[in-house]
Amino acid sequence: MHLVFDKSSLLQSVNIVLKAVPVRTTMPILECILIDATLDQIKFTTNDTELAIETIVKGEIVSRGIVAINAKMFSEIIRKLPDSEIVITTDENYQTVITCEQSVFTIAGKSGEDFSYLPAFEKDSFIYLSQFSLKELIQQTIFCTADNDTNKLMTGELFEVKNRMLTVTALDGHRIAIRKINLKEEFGEYKVIVPGKTLSEISKILTGSTESEVRIFFSKNLIAFEFDDTIVVSRLIDGEYFRVEQMITSNFDTIVNVNKKDFLDCIDRSTLLVKEGDKKPIIVNVTENELELKIKSVLGSMNEKLPVKKSGNDLMIGFNPKFLMDALKAIDEENVDFYLLNAKAPCVIKDQEESYIYLILPVNFSSAY
Amino acid sequence: MHLVFDKSSLLQSVNIVLKAVPVRTTMPILECILIDATLDQIKFTTNDTELAIETIVKGEIVSRGIVAINAKMFSEIIRKLPDSEIVITTDENYQTVITCEQSVFTIAGKSGEDFSYLPAFEKDSFIYLSQFSLKELIQQTIFCTADNDTNKLMTGELFEVKNRMLTVTALDGHRIAIRKINLKEEFGEYKVIVPGKTLSEISKILTGSTESEVRIFFSKNLIAFEFDDTIVVSRLIDGEYFRVEQMITSNFDTIVNVNKKDFLDCIDRSTLLVKEGDKKPIIVNVTENELELKIKSVLGSMNEKLPVKKSGNDLMIGFNPKFLMDALKAIDEENVDFYLLNAKAPCVIKDQEESYIYLILPVNFSSAY
Repeated sequence: MHLVFDKSSLLQSVNIVLKAVPVRTTMPILECILIDATLDQIKFTTNDTELAIETIVKGEIVSRGIVAINAKMFSEIIRKLPDSEIVITTDENYQTVITCEQSVFTIAGKSGEDFSYLPAFEKDSFIYLSQFSLKELIQQTIFCTADNDTNKLMTGELFEVKNRMLTVTALDGHRIAIRKINLKEEFGEYKVIVPGKTLSEISKILTGSTESEVRIFFSKNLIAFEFDDTIVVSRLIDGEYFRVEQMITSNFDTIVNVNKKDFLDCIDRSTLLVKEGDKKPIIVNVTENELELKIKSVLGSMNEKLPVKKSGNDLMIGFNPKFLMDALKAIDEENVDFYLLNAKAPCVIKDQEESYIYLILPVNFSSAY
Repeated sequence: MHLVFDKSSLLQSVNIVLKAVPVRTTMPILECILIDATLDQIKFTTNDTELAIETIVKGEIVSRGIVAINAKMFSEIIRKLPDSEIVITTDENYQTVITCEQSVFTIAGKSGEDFSYLPAFEKDSFIYLSQFSLKELIQQTIFCTADNDTNKLMTGELFEVKNRMLTVTALDGHRIAIRKINLKEEFGEYKVIVPGKTLSEISKILTGSTESEVRIFFSKNLIAFEFDDTIVVSRLIDGEYFRVEQMITSNFDTIVNVNKKDFLDCIDRSTLLVKEGDKKPIIVNVTENELELKIKSVLGSMNEKLPVKKSGNDLMIGFNPKFLMDALKAIDEENVDFYLLNAKAPCVIKDQEESYIYLILPVNFSSAY
């Protein structure tokens, strides 16, 4: 095999496929990038058994071939080489030589015989939207997925397509995030649970361009994302997702409109008084035209007042500050509306059209306040 | 006590004195900033028993007083407050209230009775130079001090004043760094060992301005640095420093002139093949007009050639790549000269005037190369 690349495009492609290289594995072949130039295109593939990525790389094929090469080592070498032409050759023993200007690296490759290729997926059922929209949808919901596997369903996000609309839902037992986006066409109806890790990696690869589209293909056990020269295929999470509609009531007694940035900064300051691991709530006290935020800990106390527009009853309610901040950070508006019922009922942050809905469970606070 | 500050100048002063707050200590008072407004100025002081910093803070004294306040908590609060006027008040129990716009923090302060003030130092014996020069001198030598205390002397730097010149020397048993700077006047003769930690913290506080000066005061067991509104006082390291002149011979058979950036990049690439903790040397092979860099490890091999100007014998020599890189990074020149004798003798990198001298011991390499 003898391939010639331009460093910048090579590095870009390597960075894309790196996202499906497992950090820890007992199977050395999974740590590899498969460089496949057996046909007329150069293709890089990685596969961590949950997630597989294939991307077509710009480059010249002087002579055809295939090799599997340690992804971490390969990417570090490419990154540190001068910004110039890079030549990659292999011999019959998969010994790989990477040459750039006066620099020559020699590393051992593998045949790639036992490499798991991209799983096959059906191309019939799909939707499309802009890279920008998908990236936003993911970033604005992903923080509500659960990290650990106690409940597998919570580690994923529900992707639901219905009535020209894509709805993405995430929840972790303490809060819910829902984002909706109108699609350009009427597609079929789909309802799948996509692993959070897959979405998080995809959001890093997406350029976020409003011009360029992503096609999302729905197969029985797989979801595939196709954009630019890249295809990402992921397993789905099996099971019946939570009935989220039932959790979000429309029964509210208090609506508070507050400046997002001011509220966010205020909560951020209050967290200074919470030690790591301490589950101290912040207390939000809503009165006529004023929201008072209070926190008291062994470290000291903090108190801050913000002007708000309020309709309905006065209310005092406690929250985990992190949950409030995560939701507020994900909302790109100057002012937000909080819908409240009482100190035990969930708080909902949403816009008029319900293009976003964030639900946060309150926290009990002691009568010490 | 009732003080009024502008946030930005308050934060700047807090950041300066934070440098003498110990990360871990069994004495809670050492974790405090002493805010002293008993006279006409507001002074912040910190003291970790090795290093003490005092800085005068811009602000208004509405009523006088003194309080010691947890430095970490205080700095985090100030950092997160809005960019506005900050009012600090204390009551007779040293309860401290920090107010900024609508935000009110209340934290417990201490009397400051058992606070260790800045040690007294003599003001007679001093030199001065620009902040820029001192900052450079430190940054260009500090990496050659030893981290651990096995040999206390190696954790410090020798500051030597003689014949209108300041010479700073650091060494860690594998390498030596020497930087010299001409002073504007004839001062006395001084020779002291300054703790590396002191110098590292000072280099972070110094603005690096060429306009503004630092006065360095030499006392029996102390060194003091005075600049802007700040005084830093540090204990000295006791003992007789190494006789460095004897270690640097002028007996060389080979001189190599190489482009600094190219050589640095080349060494940087070679380190990809060295696993963390592995003491693999890089091999530098100097022949007529060419320097070849080679490394071979279980991960693979690398080979790169650089054009050089050489006078004297051909030579093959092994180095710890980190030591070469540290020295090259500290030199602000396009090309550097390497002075070599043989594969067992130290390598010296220096300029004609010897304003800088870096000495690096070579590493044995196996005959496998």
